[in-house]
Amino acid sequence: MIRFDTPAAFGAALADLPPADEASRAAAAARQAGLTKPPGSLGRLEEIAIFMAGWQGRDRPRIGTGRVVVFAGNHGVAARGVSAFPPAVTAQMVANFGGGGAAINALAAAAGLDLAVVSLDLDRPTADIVAAPAMTGAECLAALNAGAAAVEPGLDLLVPGDMGIANTTPAAALCAVAFGGPARDWVGPGTGVAGAALAAKVAAVDAALARHAEHCGSPFETLRRLGGREIAAIAGAVVAARIARVPVLLDGFICASAIAPLAAAHPAIVDHCLAAHCSAEPGHRRLLDLLGLPPLLDLGMRLGEASGAAVAAGVVRAALAAHNGMATFAEAGVAAG
Amino acid sequence: MIRFDTPAAFGAALADLPPADEASRAAAAARQAGLTKPPGSLGRLEEIAIFMAGWQGRDRPRIGTGRVVVFAGNHGVAARGVSAFPPAVTAQMVANFGGGGAAINALAAAAGLDLAVVSLDLDRPTADIVAAPAMTGAECLAALNAGAAAVEPGLDLLVPGDMGIANTTPAAALCAVAFGGPARDWVGPGTGVAGAALAAKVAAVDAALARHAEHCGSPFETLRRLGGREIAAIAGAVVAARIARVPVLLDGFICASAIAPLAAAHPAIVDHCLAAHCSAEPGHRRLLDLLGLPPLLDLGMRLGEASGAAVAAGVVRAALAAHNGMATFAEAGVAAG
Repeated sequence: MIRFDTPAAFGAALADLPPADEASRAAAAARQAGLTKPPGSLGRLEEIAIFMAGWQGRDRPRIGTGRVVVFAGNHGVAARGVSAFPPAVTAQMVANFGGGGAAINALAAAAGLDLAVVSLDLDRPTADIVAAPAMTGAECLAALNAGAAAVEPGLDLLVPGDMGIANTTPAAALCAVAFGGPARDWVGPGTGVAGAALAAKVAAVDAALARHAEHCGSPFETLRRLGGREIAAIAGAVVAARIARVPVLLDGFICASAIAPLAAAHPAIVDHCLAAHCSAEPGHRRLLDLLGLPPLLDLGMRLGEASGAAVAAGVVRAALAAHNGMATFAEAGVAAG
Repeated sequence: MIRFDTPAAFGAALADLPPADEASRAAAAARQAGLTKPPGSLGRLEEIAIFMAGWQGRDRPRIGTGRVVVFAGNHGVAARGVSAFPPAVTAQMVANFGGGGAAINALAAAAGLDLAVVSLDLDRPTADIVAAPAMTGAECLAALNAGAAAVEPGLDLLVPGDMGIANTTPAAALCAVAFGGPARDWVGPGTGVAGAALAAKVAAVDAALARHAEHCGSPFETLRRLGGREIAAIAGAVVAARIARVPVLLDGFICASAIAPLAAAHPAIVDHCLAAHCSAEPGHRRLLDLLGLPPLLDLGMRLGEASGAAVAAGVVRAALAAHNGMATFAEAGVAAG
């Protein structure tokens, strides 16, 4: 199992990210060129198949075991009225995941993905980022490792997701530190705030940036000061997946914000990631552009829970079905144009 | 079985299109409002579930029997060098469908859809539209009815598709007659033509428009003069599906062009249709805008065969899985914000 023993070990892992397997990529690209279709006519399905081949290290990639892992955490900043829902909903939704009644239960099942839920000290919210760092070093490291622990060797696809009332507030702060811009560029309605609540959210992010931005000297320190437990867990899971060469399907704004501070320092962190969708949260499109991750879907979703990624997993499955199942021009006796 | 006995009967059907079942739509919308998620947070998945409810006439819509039907036809205009592939490839690809080796075989199976292939007189191409009407009235009516025959009552989703070397050329002509604009606005690379071949394609469409446009007084006459057998079959299938209240998932440029002349005269024809994707063929985006059909996917696909629609069927399945499988706030004991 992958574990980061210290913040420095996490930083060292980020500085030494392994590449994809070029031989598998090349073999998959050669196979695509011979399949019974005009070259390139399956568009991004072709790219996805080659991407999956490179990270799985096999020219015929598969999703035997694909796993959704929803990380849940609570946020001290919720007390500032930045969300349309009360913090108790985080635990209630975790219970709903357990009972099989949430969107991700239905969507993971439809996509043929396993579902795991990791609750991170829900009765112990992070500190209010307006007033203090969200976490101690030990708390942040524990959250990173809770994420890393979700990555089993041999997993064919990792789909991290989030549940955490108020978490678009720390997410906006992480984006602002990683890529610049004032709070209003990164704050959006989240679950549905407007008016005074939205203004409170912008003010909270501005205040948090004023307190912490100049002290965010590393990805770890940025996550510790401005993140949250589920956000740090997602970051840990994405880095652990890279070490294990497990491809990652990133859900929405929270997942992208979790890797924003990592990507600002080490842009190659996105190489084993696909952006599943562009959410309705306005900062997400801007963030995906900065990360260089064009989304697979753009369906106006904004739920989190890995819900958008579970839908996109169907597109990845389709890409692999075509890649593995189609005949070549030679096999089918079709003139190659 | 639905049949159009005369061109006038086809026109009469278009003038009397049945609406969706409003009670089922309303019941589905009410259910969506109570599910454990912020209102609207599943974006287009919510719209899809309500759309399917209205056309299936049940508040919990399903895809038990979803059917891809690929219609294949040949085109006299292919002799003008407008395609990157020779006309013999149409029959070779039909054989490939039969052998299970084409993209649509893999993608339909991945989406849990049945696949039927309907070959339409492949050894008897339509006339060259530059020189004459593509079809006689009897030929066009036979093609429309071949499409209508593919619609069985009780089908939960119809996914028409096309195979026909050179068919982006008549498709461009149909769009130009339906919505105006010169040939160059509607002609694109198709399977991959450029340079002189692309210029020949533009010239062919301009010449066909000069010969036929002023005589295209009805959707039937437009399809007869400028369409093709597989294109008319798709139009017939879409109208028959409407009469049977079977929702339709439209594939790419060819499927949209088949209903373009219908929609220009009777815009409500699109009401039971979802646009599966926006293809890389440049005219398709413009056409979807004019039809008022925002695509579900935009993955740079341009293969036809219903391949993009089969991928989008997974999104429709996801929408129904969430709609039918999620708990309500009351059932799950979650605070509704």
